[in-house]
Amino acid sequence: MTTDTAPWRATILTLYPEMFPGPLGLSLSGDALARGTWALETHQIREHGIGRHRSVDDTPAGGGAGMVLRCDVLAAAIDAAAAPDDPRPRLLMSPRGKQLSQARVRALSAGPGAVIVCGRFEGVDERVISARGLEEVSIGDYVLSGGEIAALVLVDACVRLLPGVMGKVASGEDESFEAGRLEYPHYTRPREWEGHAIPDILNSGNHGAIARWREAESLRLTQERRPDLLTRHED
Amino acid sequence: MTTDTAPWRATILTLYPEMFPGPLGLSLSGDALARGTWALETHQIREHGIGRHRSVDDTPAGGGAGMVLRCDVLAAAIDAAAAPDDPRPRLLMSPRGKQLSQARVRALSAGPGAVIVCGRFEGVDERVISARGLEEVSIGDYVLSGGEIAALVLVDACVRLLPGVMGKVASGEDESFEAGRLEYPHYTRPREWEGHAIPDILNSGNHGAIARWREAESLRLTQERRPDLLTRHED
Repeated sequence: MTTDTAPWRATILTLYPEMFPGPLGLSLSGDALARGTWALETHQIREHGIGRHRSVDDTPAGGGAGMVLRCDVLAAAIDAAAAPDDPRPRLLMSPRGKQLSQARVRALSAGPGAVIVCGRFEGVDERVISARGLEEVSIGDYVLSGGEIAALVLVDACVRLLPGVMGKVASGEDESFEAGRLEYPHYTRPREWEGHAIPDILNSGNHGAIARWREAESLRLTQERRPDLLTRHED
Repeated sequence: MTTDTAPWRATILTLYPEMFPGPLGLSLSGDALARGTWALETHQIREHGIGRHRSVDDTPAGGGAGMVLRCDVLAAAIDAAAAPDDPRPRLLMSPRGKQLSQARVRALSAGPGAVIVCGRFEGVDERVISARGLEEVSIGDYVLSGGEIAALVLVDACVRLLPGVMGKVASGEDESFEAGRLEYPHYTRPREWEGHAIPDILNSGNHGAIARWREAESLRLTQERRPDLLTRHED
């Protein structure tokens, strides 16, 4: 099975290309990668390192702990990985970025792909961010050891929305966040388990009543756990 | 090099044990895994599947797309992976959960570890969540193809805070979120690059002035990008 359009293309700049495809090479995303629904390229930033040791980092200007990824090295890696007219957004995975949302994931998956820079060390020299038009994207309010696992998150979220990847589930319309709400509870066989029964309504065969119950449960869960989702205006 | 205390222990229940350690087997977390600072165990949920085909899922009660992970199968897997008196929190990676924060990461990394259940398909039968005391944890407001990559995020964030993993950087006090703010911009050599210079203050050698500049920049970036962090009360 092949797709008749150009694949969604992820180009990843990293000091750990061996982390890819990793989990993206298995399951739904792995099957889709194998049949060409999407394509993955990794670029080793170190190939653009300085001198015999291919050095990529240096101590922070002004002092402090850790090392900073050099702007000249990273710019050379970006220039080699993506032509200036490459239409794909250039993302830098960073806890300082705008938080990733399902709406952004959907927009990215509808486009041609993404060029993704994975930071490491204490950070990236600020100058390369503006000079190469990198958009900082955060997957959440916590700190990782590098941008690689964040890139796995972003690509997985996008790939599963590509045509044909999820099959019948692909509409994704019932899912968490698609309607600005958390998803309703799921049940399956057995009907009774350790004294807990499936809610009667789900066995009623009354599709209208089931849909209303699910909508009410979805709203209840969202109000209880994430009231912010009900008042948030997507920007 | 070995640690003289019990390692931080991650036990992961998944249908894709081959996704682990994956990226966690490399770089800082991989080194720390090799020297026993933390330990990783995976359990294949399918080993507790039903019948000759080791079936783990079934159609949703009440109808709808996708498949639901059975409560009896998942409960058996949990019971086999963690004794009732295991003091570690039992987490279910799920977009319906409470959002992971750096404060929660720090608390988890200070504990004995975590038992982490990775959902797949449309979801998990609701009854097993309460019956086995699973706490739903979300890494962000987007949907992944399964909980595995979310588990990689959680474990990576925790492991890098374990004693000795990050070396000198380990205090992490300057980092994004640790003080409820985004991190200030970083710079390193070369001093001038493509017409952009490192801010003069960072070359001044005046440590007090540099610290004040960094604090002001951190505040400015947070106000610009994430004003919510400045008003949020950590719960």
